[in-house]
Amino acid sequence: MNRNDLRPGPWVLARRAEKMNPSVIREILKVTERPGIISFAGGLPSPRTFPVAAFAQACETVLRQDGQAALQYASSEGYGPLRELVAAGLPWNVRANQVLITTGSQQGLDLVAKILIDAGSRILVETPTYLGALQAFSAMEPEVVNVGSDTEGIDVDDLALQARIDTGSEGNSARFLYLLPNFQNPTGRTLGESRRAAVSQRAAELGLPIVEDNPYGDLWFDQPPPLPLTARNPEGCVYLGSFSKVLAPGLRLGFLVAPDALYPKLLQAKQAADLHSPSFNQRMIAEVMKDGFLERHVPTIRALYKSQRDAMLAALEREMRGLDVQWNTPAGGMYIWLRLPPELDAAELLPRAVELGVAFVPGAAFFAHEPDPRTLRLSFGTASVEQIDTGMAALAAAIRASRVFSRGTAKAGSA
Amino acid sequence: MNRNDLRPGPWVLARRAEKMNPSVIREILKVTERPGIISFAGGLPSPRTFPVAAFAQACETVLRQDGQAALQYASSEGYGPLRELVAAGLPWNVRANQVLITTGSQQGLDLVAKILIDAGSRILVETPTYLGALQAFSAMEPEVVNVGSDTEGIDVDDLALQARIDTGSEGNSARFLYLLPNFQNPTGRTLGESRRAAVSQRAAELGLPIVEDNPYGDLWFDQPPPLPLTARNPEGCVYLGSFSKVLAPGLRLGFLVAPDALYPKLLQAKQAADLHSPSFNQRMIAEVMKDGFLERHVPTIRALYKSQRDAMLAALEREMRGLDVQWNTPAGGMYIWLRLPPELDAAELLPRAVELGVAFVPGAAFFAHEPDPRTLRLSFGTASVEQIDTGMAALAAAIRASRVFSRGTAKAGSA
Repeated sequence: MNRNDLRPGPWVLARRAEKMNPSVIREILKVTERPGIISFAGGLPSPRTFPVAAFAQACETVLRQDGQAALQYASSEGYGPLRELVAAGLPWNVRANQVLITTGSQQGLDLVAKILIDAGSRILVETPTYLGALQAFSAMEPEVVNVGSDTEGIDVDDLALQARIDTGSEGNSARFLYLLPNFQNPTGRTLGESRRAAVSQRAAELGLPIVEDNPYGDLWFDQPPPLPLTARNPEGCVYLGSFSKVLAPGLRLGFLVAPDALYPKLLQAKQAADLHSPSFNQRMIAEVMKDGFLERHVPTIRALYKSQRDAMLAALEREMRGLDVQWNTPAGGMYIWLRLPPELDAAELLPRAVELGVAFVPGAAFFAHEPDPRTLRLSFGTASVEQIDTGMAALAAAIRASRVFSRGTAKAGSA
Repeated sequence: MNRNDLRPGPWVLARRAEKMNPSVIREILKVTERPGIISFAGGLPSPRTFPVAAFAQACETVLRQDGQAALQYASSEGYGPLRELVAAGLPWNVRANQVLITTGSQQGLDLVAKILIDAGSRILVETPTYLGALQAFSAMEPEVVNVGSDTEGIDVDDLALQARIDTGSEGNSARFLYLLPNFQNPTGRTLGESRRAAVSQRAAELGLPIVEDNPYGDLWFDQPPPLPLTARNPEGCVYLGSFSKVLAPGLRLGFLVAPDALYPKLLQAKQAADLHSPSFNQRMIAEVMKDGFLERHVPTIRALYKSQRDAMLAALEREMRGLDVQWNTPAGGMYIWLRLPPELDAAELLPRAVELGVAFVPGAAFFAHEPDPRTLRLSFGTASVEQIDTGMAALAAAIRASRVFSRGTAKAGSA
């Protein structure tokens, strides 16, 4: 490739910049979040769940009691009391000094990528997986490898095959496996207990590290998800968490839990990335959380999302009858994964759906390789039951129209 | 190097992680910010300048008027009204869509490094330069090259020599020059008008891009600094700014201004790094700034820092008499750069100074190569006039004791 093609004016871009692309989802959102469109596209939490009054009280308290300290530079590790609260809230034995506060869990992915990925490093992901992780990892130029996955999550035998662990030599063995085991973005699927135990055991046997991303784990509907992979092998896992789905994303705070062997390097990468996450926001969240607020607040989020999931499942059942459409029943979180009939392509369906007033994200964006063009992601986080009913009817109409069109132009079977 | 040395447990670290080190300054701060020590070490703004009441009012207003939107995910570019305020406040013609809001200006350095530095890329820095920039750049594995610098800033002829611009081939020509032209951290020096014009012109002739970092420019004492380099050649420069020194660092907000040729790649790097900077904080700052607040507030910061600089200069004049110590007179900002007599080493002086109750940062940390061991940085941002008087007397005593010791052990001249 001619590097001069990459020279806009006097600038020469780094090779990794070639691999960066605008987020497909953010581009779709610009089109689909027009007024009048019922959007199931964005992965947004419901703003109805944001505890605005509690935050207002916390701002007032923090600035009155400790305003100057809250507004000053602070330690890169994060605010001590918040790290204590995080450690105490996790379902295994975590010390506060293993907790690093990050600028959203997205930054956790960036830091992990920086300290674990060299150009060409092999890393393993689920099929499909979280787009933001693919973006964060891609900046460090890895070889991203799909591990075969079914409705329960990744295939343990394929995991062993793809890990390519060569004992005694580094070879091109995988640097880590990235997993989102609970109510996954985009599929909504959950790695069940038996599969989870098998993945954990096989990874430990292989010496394959795991990066476990768990932004949705608290949003379960009927029962909590199984124990995190990190709890089963803390020395072999980095765990990423977020306050975005249980409090609010606009404060941009998340955290990671790392073994002592990795923590100092993650901390140094954090210093270089943004010195520290906003100290004011960390104190706000610690203030809100300190008296067991989440134990009262999170159940209300679960109840809301469960009612919206139920409405979407019922509407799908009603509207998709006879359309050869498949979907899953997520046990928590915000997403349903839908598969169109063989002759349809979700990216081609989208403009027709938008014409009829409904939007979604085609699934292709979430595959590192070999996308399944029939898949799409529906988010039920922000829509009311009424919008869900109207939107699913519109989606069914778009599918019906596309099938007719598809058959009419003899494209059936082309997918 | 044996990569197995880098394998803590199952983890294999990336090559760039080897090059990361704990911030020397943060390590020093842990020792020197003990109670009872007068510290001129930290580069902290004075918390007395933080407009706590204005922030409290802004929090209340933002959450009352637009709480749900302020707490939701937002665009990666930043909050529109804040981008407008930034663009309007800069002394050249900037469009709001050239402004990217960053998580502190430190993140601006991280994003620039990601899109402009390949492993081995040549980048040029002043001698000495900002430690945080060296950390952010180092993560992308460049070859960092010192440009010769004197009390006015970088040497233009050495700049041309070190740039190694080979027309027609990429060669190993420099990717960019990093400059902090106003009241520089660590030296306090300012690139004067004639030198600035010469640097700008020579860089433009060479086709050498400039990354201009300006966190301190508003903190001038008698007259504003000369026009930014970016204003003289906007297509050839990225400009970094910060709210940390004029409002407060604990909100972690800064910005960059980029030419259209680079903006999309910086934006994509930003999305992958942390999705967006905290939307709540951006609205808080826009709310505080909207009625010309900075025009009333910043002059009070200038007056405070000027009085502290004057106290430090007077104390140095008084206490260092006959000690063969040199220092400069910064025209703004928070730093004085001091040079010890030939036989002394600032790193060796530090423990003796701490014993006597005063702390500073040895200058060596700020050099990419060939540190000058006689230099040290004094920050006058947070100390009262009384602390400055006591601290400078203690520093002089430490120097006096070290000179005696140094001569007594026949080390004179060894530096």
